[in-house]
Amino acid sequence: MDGAITIFPIRSVGEVGAGDDVAAILIASMGRDAIALEAGDVVVVTHKIVSKAEGRVVEIADDADYRALVRDEAAAVIRKRGDLVITKTRHGFICANAGVDRSNTPEGTAVLLPLDPDRSAHAIRSKLAAASGVDIAVIVTDTFGRPWRRGLADVAIGVSGLEAVADLRGTQDMYGRTLDVTEVAVADELAAAADLVMGKASGIPAAVVRGYEAPPGAGRGSDLVRRADEDLFR
Amino acid sequence: MDGAITIFPIRSVGEVGAGDDVAAILIASMGRDAIALEAGDVVVVTHKIVSKAEGRVVEIADDADYRALVRDEAAAVIRKRGDLVITKTRHGFICANAGVDRSNTPEGTAVLLPLDPDRSAHAIRSKLAAASGVDIAVIVTDTFGRPWRRGLADVAIGVSGLEAVADLRGTQDMYGRTLDVTEVAVADELAAAADLVMGKASGIPAAVVRGYEAPPGAGRGSDLVRRADEDLFR
Repeated sequence: MDGAITIFPIRSVGEVGAGDDVAAILIASMGRDAIALEAGDVVVVTHKIVSKAEGRVVEIADDADYRALVRDEAAAVIRKRGDLVITKTRHGFICANAGVDRSNTPEGTAVLLPLDPDRSAHAIRSKLAAASGVDIAVIVTDTFGRPWRRGLADVAIGVSGLEAVADLRGTQDMYGRTLDVTEVAVADELAAAADLVMGKASGIPAAVVRGYEAPPGAGRGSDLVRRADEDLFR
Repeated sequence: MDGAITIFPIRSVGEVGAGDDVAAILIASMGRDAIALEAGDVVVVTHKIVSKAEGRVVEIADDADYRALVRDEAAAVIRKRGDLVITKTRHGFICANAGVDRSNTPEGTAVLLPLDPDRSAHAIRSKLAAASGVDIAVIVTDTFGRPWRRGLADVAIGVSGLEAVADLRGTQDMYGRTLDVTEVAVADELAAAADLVMGKASGIPAAVVRGYEAPPGAGRGSDLVRRADEDLFR
């Protein structure tokens, strides 16, 4: 239907290890799932498999190791209460535990964020585009908590091939009034949408969003980080 | 495809006025758009048309009127800088300007949030279910800014027919480890996903999400509000 969006899970990815080629794995998985990429598709990939492929996995013996790793990974601690540490990462993202994650990784290990999620997204995009012959966009995601609101939601940390934030300045509403809402976090909305087909317990680490007319541009994950001097809540 | 989600815009809604029946309008619009509701669909509706139908529209002459209206609607002011006021609404939501909005409403008017967005969602759901003969869920949304992250994203403020926050406690990841991530804000992810087909300038105020297995339950919009004593950022 005109204007509809479809989101396909990329199911059969399986285990990803250091040195693996995420794009090649996704291509093989999409082949098994009978998904053929089309121009304009947005491929959304959880950072977990990207980090694993990039060797961003650390052995930890216990909770003390984990806490030390979080301290190492954090550029700054924003708030702390008990075991909960809200940090700024070196990329500038503000999230719990500097993005260090112990789920969906073997016992005794923790997964770090990619060093440069935009570069990761770009590399995957180039290979997917070359293999499919169509231009697509790629978003690398993580799962963040939010102040004020319960529950976690997926957000974009790496972006290639679209604007991360759509700027509607100058756009008019249905009454011809210039919109108050000028910037929409489309990459985060795409990440959240893709999470609906992935889930946290399913082992599905990627999805294809089809039919969305992404704002063209060369957005970056850091576009989604509010400047400290514009942020009332740091 | 198995596990895929499709999101249909409900396009031809047109103008909504005080006393209108939002469910009847959506049914007529879906008829024109050739959308037949199916069991398990999640119908996502921006609060703007709900508020208008409920008469939550106020005449304002100027910016001073608008600021006074925001003060009236706010239960508390959380932060203030220049014209930007971050407020707690009477519902408990934390958002800019107490949710009072001057876009997509005629010049000289402002739209308030529904008094009880859950009740609004429930009323729409009952009528859509009666008309279609299938059980569906309804989410009423607004567009919120976020601390730390640039750009706005749609979130759920009213919910009927699903859990707003999916509780994964006890769920195991692909390695059999109990998940760190235990609560996922699925209603917010659905709101964000639906916004991808609606946009802010398009005049499309509703969408149908099909294929998502929503967690069954009687969630409420307030489930998505983090308790003040659990919130490090108020």
